[in-house]
Amino acid sequence: MSSEPVIIRSHHPFRLESGYELPELTIAYHSYGKLNAARDNVVWVCHALTANSDVADWWPHTVEAGAFLDPDKWYVVCANILGSHYGTTGPLHINPETGKPFYGDFPRFTIGDMVAAHRVLADMLGIGHIHALVGSSVGGFQALEWAAQEPGRFGKLILIATDAKASPWTIAIDETQRMAIKSDATYGEPRPDAGLAGLAAARAIGLLTYRGPEGYNITQQDACSDAPFTTRRACTYQQYQGEKLVRRYNAYSYVAILDAFDTHDIGRRRGGTDAALASIQCPTAVVGISTDIIFTPDEMRSLASKIPGAEYHEITSRFGHDGFLVEHRQLNDILTPFING
Amino acid sequence: MSSEPVIIRSHHPFRLESGYELPELTIAYHSYGKLNAARDNVVWVCHALTANSDVADWWPHTVEAGAFLDPDKWYVVCANILGSHYGTTGPLHINPETGKPFYGDFPRFTIGDMVAAHRVLADMLGIGHIHALVGSSVGGFQALEWAAQEPGRFGKLILIATDAKASPWTIAIDETQRMAIKSDATYGEPRPDAGLAGLAAARAIGLLTYRGPEGYNITQQDACSDAPFTTRRACTYQQYQGEKLVRRYNAYSYVAILDAFDTHDIGRRRGGTDAALASIQCPTAVVGISTDIIFTPDEMRSLASKIPGAEYHEITSRFGHDGFLVEHRQLNDILTPFING
Repeated sequence: MSSEPVIIRSHHPFRLESGYELPELTIAYHSYGKLNAARDNVVWVCHALTANSDVADWWPHTVEAGAFLDPDKWYVVCANILGSHYGTTGPLHINPETGKPFYGDFPRFTIGDMVAAHRVLADMLGIGHIHALVGSSVGGFQALEWAAQEPGRFGKLILIATDAKASPWTIAIDETQRMAIKSDATYGEPRPDAGLAGLAAARAIGLLTYRGPEGYNITQQDACSDAPFTTRRACTYQQYQGEKLVRRYNAYSYVAILDAFDTHDIGRRRGGTDAALASIQCPTAVVGISTDIIFTPDEMRSLASKIPGAEYHEITSRFGHDGFLVEHRQLNDILTPFING
Repeated sequence: MSSEPVIIRSHHPFRLESGYELPELTIAYHSYGKLNAARDNVVWVCHALTANSDVADWWPHTVEAGAFLDPDKWYVVCANILGSHYGTTGPLHINPETGKPFYGDFPRFTIGDMVAAHRVLADMLGIGHIHALVGSSVGGFQALEWAAQEPGRFGKLILIATDAKASPWTIAIDETQRMAIKSDATYGEPRPDAGLAGLAAARAIGLLTYRGPEGYNITQQDACSDAPFTTRRACTYQQYQGEKLVRRYNAYSYVAILDAFDTHDIGRRRGGTDAALASIQCPTAVVGISTDIIFTPDEMRSLASKIPGAEYHEITSRFGHDGFLVEHRQLNDILTPFING
């Protein structure tokens, strides 16, 4: 079960990359362990798409004694991302200018804006140097962007199943999800449950890409049957996953974060992606997943090769992109010595 | 440009595997070349999901002199599949019982029913022995099912990017497309353009799986830009592909054929898939595609290994499942000697 985040508010205007200025900023975050006197034991985790700030909840067996996010050793911080459903300023929050929720009028923002919000939180918590910055998937987008914004701030960088730039393939996946949401004509109506049938379909699209062929074929086989029209487990699974997201999320946040995903390119205004990667100064571990069809092992190897001195590791998993959530033993084996060493 | 099919009608009742009886059957088909006096030069092509009977149109450079479907040599026949938009009895046809189009009330049918319709056409054309039966994707489902129904009828069998049974992975892809269509609340309304926004999203989902990561990354790269919110080629492409299908197809046929897809298992009532494959008697060529994420090379090799004496070939392509439409040179190189030999 997820625990409640801490909510803090910054009353300074928060200017987005688009120029739009949010008059204030609410940030929801979790922390585990204690900040030591030297303030040098901070590990900052950036979360992905529909997750929240409670890392211990969504990333099993990583935030525990002996694991790579050991709270006896590290002060682990995770902030809910801008635009999300889980506490940080987003589409369901009140637009101070209108007194009504933003919904579809929430201003567009970038991965860089998510990072700017993290930096506001770090300042408010009195955190300067960060021992290790960790991100998987869209969390890795934030980690890379932050490392590019402040190359001297981090002791180590851990990038799992992610990329330095949204690829055409991942943008196509996002656009397809937006098409599914917008084919639900209720999307756009000023209410929190607008577009939920579309959101369920979008989530099912996401799941296809998170799990991939093997992921489905090993978990969703049907019993043999001589009847042609039976209920298939794979269908029930897709429906179930769609409904599960619909019960906990909203379509406006989902689209807003997909839109931000597509803007990701750490090379923007930094002379290109390769130049930005070459500027990363801290020891970096890049982790790919053998069956990931979103961020393929080939692309992960390529990413590692462009970061000076980066080490590349590959998790063997049959669960595709979701392997980073499933294969915590392999992750801990790789990352515990890296983060401690 | 597609040419008009020949339309023929069987006035005998056509009983589906479900028990439902269509009072008559319309079949649209194309043929190329001439049936020889010995009637032994028939090559039957089974088409996939949203294609039509005009093979020369949708499968470039395969139906021409020197290619594997050489019309100077073979009498090439392709029938539009049951339930399709392109002439054979389907959801937009009049239900004789009500005098109105079937739309969403079109009876459920199986891949076996598609094959039964092919057999009706073959009888009407006076075709007995078939020199070669060819199918790719859902066309391969039909070819395998037909080979299992009438093992002695075929001289050769050609199976491209297909399977003997719909896998949980492919069923999950289908279900996700159905979810997208049904999130469009107009689906179900008794009109031919019901559910078209959902259909566009479903098509975009299909495209993701047809093309895969490399397919998008080599064709849909954007120019570098310092602006975060630009129009991405991958988005335009998904929208365009969705709209293109919407202009030429209907959502009821699409869902009906996806439903039939999911029923595919040549092992049903034949002692299991492996036993059914072991019963195939004719020389068989199985062709996989190196980057296909729907019918992966591993699965294609496994399929070939279960058919007695089958030869396995792999096309090298960066276009995923769509490689069978793109790599006609490699296909012709593999299949011309096989079909002639």
